Amino acid sequence: MSKENRIHCAALRSKVMSANEAASLIQSGMNVGMSGFTGAGYPKAVPSALAKRIMDANVNGKRFKIGVWTGASTAPDLDGALAMVDGIEMRLPYQSDPTCRKRINAGEMEYIDIHLSHVAQFVWFGFLGKLDVAVVEVAGILEDGRLIPSSSIGNNKTWLDQADKVILEVNSWQSSQLEGMHDIWYGTQLPPNRQPIPLVRSSDRIGEPYLRCDPEKVIAVVETHAPDRNSAFTPPDESSKRIAGHILEFLQYEVKKGRLPRELLPLQSGVGNIANAVMAGLNEGPFENLTAYTEVLQDGMLEMLKSGKLASASATAFSLSNEALAELTADLGRYRERIILRPQEISNHPEVIRRLGVIAMNGMIEADIYGNVNSTHVMGSQIMNGIGGSGDFARNAYLSIFMTPSQAKNGAISCIVPMASHVDHTEHDVQVLVTEQGLADLRGLSPKQRAKAIIENCAHPNFKPALSDYYKRALQFSPGKQTPHLLEEVFSWHLRTLRGERM
Amino acid sequence: MSKENRIHCAALRSKVMSANEAASLIQSGMNVGMSGFTGAGYPKAVPSALAKRIMDANVNGKRFKIGVWTGASTAPDLDGALAMVDGIEMRLPYQSDPTCRKRINAGEMEYIDIHLSHVAQFVWFGFLGKLDVAVVEVAGILEDGRLIPSSSIGNNKTWLDQADKVILEVNSWQSSQLEGMHDIWYGTQLPPNRQPIPLVRSSDRIGEPYLRCDPEKVIAVVETHAPDRNSAFTPPDESSKRIAGHILEFLQYEVKKGRLPRELLPLQSGVGNIANAVMAGLNEGPFENLTAYTEVLQDGMLEMLKSGKLASASATAFSLSNEALAELTADLGRYRERIILRPQEISNHPEVIRRLGVIAMNGMIEADIYGNVNSTHVMGSQIMNGIGGSGDFARNAYLSIFMTPSQAKNGAISCIVPMASHVDHTEHDVQVLVTEQGLADLRGLSPKQRAKAIIENCAHPNFKPALSDYYKRALQFSPGKQTPHLLEEVFSWHLRTLRGERM
Repeated sequence: MSKENRIHCAALRSKVMSANEAASLIQSGMNVGMSGFTGAGYPKAVPSALAKRIMDANVNGKRFKIGVWTGASTAPDLDGALAMVDGIEMRLPYQSDPTCRKRINAGEMEYIDIHLSHVAQFVWFGFLGKLDVAVVEVAGILEDGRLIPSSSIGNNKTWLDQADKVILEVNSWQSSQLEGMHDIWYGTQLPPNRQPIPLVRSSDRIGEPYLRCDPEKVIAVVETHAPDRNSAFTPPDESSKRIAGHILEFLQYEVKKGRLPRELLPLQSGVGNIANAVMAGLNEGPFENLTAYTEVLQDGMLEMLKSGKLASASATAFSLSNEALAELTADLGRYRERIILRPQEISNHPEVIRRLGVIAMNGMIEADIYGNVNSTHVMGSQIMNGIGGSGDFARNAYLSIFMTPSQAKNGAISCIVPMASHVDHTEHDVQVLVTEQGLADLRGLSPKQRAKAIIENCAHPNFKPALSDYYKRALQFSPGKQTPHLLEEVFSWHLRTLRGERM
Repeated sequence: MSKENRIHCAALRSKVMSANEAASLIQSGMNVGMSGFTGAGYPKAVPSALAKRIMDANVNGKRFKIGVWTGASTAPDLDGALAMVDGIEMRLPYQSDPTCRKRINAGEMEYIDIHLSHVAQFVWFGFLGKLDVAVVEVAGILEDGRLIPSSSIGNNKTWLDQADKVILEVNSWQSSQLEGMHDIWYGTQLPPNRQPIPLVRSSDRIGEPYLRCDPEKVIAVVETHAPDRNSAFTPPDESSKRIAGHILEFLQYEVKKGRLPRELLPLQSGVGNIANAVMAGLNEGPFENLTAYTEVLQDGMLEMLKSGKLASASATAFSLSNEALAELTADLGRYRERIILRPQEISNHPEVIRRLGVIAMNGMIEADIYGNVNSTHVMGSQIMNGIGGSGDFARNAYLSIFMTPSQAKNGAISCIVPMASHVDHTEHDVQVLVTEQGLADLRGLSPKQRAKAIIENCAHPNFKPALSDYYKRALQFSPGKQTPHLLEEVFSWHLRTLRGERM
């Protein structure tokens, strides 16, 4: 375990115990708010110890289930371990764990998929029930009990404020240089007492670098020395590079037309291959002095910070490969000036996103020919991960871009379909759709005009004739021609997939 | 025409001309930004004159079509007249006119249905193309050329700012007592220069009572003396009263539980029978010192202002019956202190709605068993009106309530269906669903739990068994059990309606 003392508060030092002892303080039926966002900053020891405790209970014929609330996704040793022993009654607001997903889709676990900006306030409003315990990873504890946040912030401020009891994990694996990077704003209030959030540039610091926590509430402190779940970096594939190419061309065109400043506007970008490809493209592109106001700082953005193309980045979590993490850690003292981690209620806040005029770039599962986007449900019923922050950003962005390869499963599935089998982003919130085939600029287009642009520019050639045929027949036979549809065959594409056929 | 001089600016006085002369300054192919929001404050003379001009052109075999942009819906002498002569190429962002609707659903007119808070900025960003002419009704013109707004503001500020040329209609029918009621904030900016909107109470005045307009741009001033399209008030029916009852009971419970202050939070409410019933209920209910932050001030709210239950109301337009209008006009000097009309970019702004913690109450066409809401499309393809501001309010509200009678067309249609045939509000944005049958509180529920609550509390007894049966079979046979669905039969209910059968 820890080789270094990170706990400088005597009162809290006295509460150090093992993960097993700490886990024994959590009871079945409790709602537990855990730290963690995209594999960063989640508690490394207590959840696994709790999973063992749950397994023991199960072996003894006792039911033991808890509610698990986090920032977003976590890691196998949290979501995976607890789902494995069927220890989660209700999971929110986001997950991406294979075991979790399997349980949810088997109907064995309840899951609420929530806009990430809504979570903290819903808890504070009392809409989600009582938060019994917070289990939060930190990088250290100051003499006065204030906490140095870890590699993500997520909902930690809210968990520490709202939980009856608090368990802290102090992870000495996290760089001590993280201190000073974070910006926690304690100005949030309940209505009717809310004030404007005084953030007008993505790089503004409006709060303080530490989390506050009433030491009286802390029932356990656990020392750990364990790495985040850092995902392996895969270089962008051909399809992702082409998507990135279309986006870059579009952004250059917008600058030329005077609709975007030369340094663009703050970028929001998800994780994964396409996102990294877009960042790689921007890193080699013509734009200078860029900024980011996003959820997650991934490899591509770190590269851009390194090259200087990106002046600053605001996020709520890191999501880095081991290589990128090594780069960050080696020079953290310098990077720290240009990276700001905030609570997700601020990183994803509609007020701030709209004010800054963010350029939002999000992935998806499928879009329909009218530009309704499904971000969450495969074949309309099976959850993949969740909506995450995509709704916070897309609805309030200056430009809302959604991107996907035009087909999946080696060409068996078209990602452009007649009707999305689940809608997370309505036609009202989707301005630009991009596949490796091309980009459809939907601004100022009616649904019928959108359909033509999407089929023409985004659909894969293998599916384009069938989509055109559907659209043409819908235009002829649909009872209404604002958004022409043939309800009797609208999901025939998905049903072919469910029968094991090509869409 | 006018019996009273409302034009005190000599430079603009010199531009007075007939509606026909003014209409002759509008050419085919132009985008025209007109005033008007829910039948209030729309131009009364120029659109009809323009419609005649278009008819003449058509008779002579000439194509004459324009783009019509407004605040929201208008009246037969604007939307109706122009649609009648097939003079609208593209309509945005909202309409509720029968002729317009017919044209759109016949595929003869393009229509873009836009979040009302997005419109002004999209025009300013250059996303919707060039705005050629503004045609704006005002209640008067000051000596220095500033304009006294009319009975709605909508997008007038943006039209006057962005249009190349301006046609003003000065309507002496509008009460001269309107002067001083409005609050126009000129602090909006393009990103990256946006600042916080300094509005922290629904009753705050942050701007000035007049619209600015460069007199150089004004090409015509037309004097009118014509009433707004005031809708007849129909007393709440039994079903609406029951919906209102459920909502009142719910709000009282929330106050009791400490989740709402005793004076509640600012109310947003649509127009129509249900909305008026809710207001009537609140007017007789236990709450005092209420406030409203809404789009439209309708009869129900005026009653509450009169009784004193409602301390103040902020909106962007009136939508009153003749009786209510008479009441307002008779005492406008006093009401003026407690009513504020704002541009719709402020009345519907996500930043303000979220900050204030609005209680949003909106109608709908149908909801599915998981709480996805269709506000716009009958049978998935036929536009009814549009999303209006419901998305601005629902996504950012403290409480997002959607309401509808449980069935329509004398029981032939269930308003609770297996899957919404079009989605405007996703599961993520719908917290409470109400029909005359009851109220489903969806907060903190997973999709499966939502389905049970909605079927149990909201569905009509005539459709409940079939919905339960669908849900039960979906739960058993759906490939994924996060949101169980049987895609092969999910629209069978709508298809029965389309065949003329009972759902």
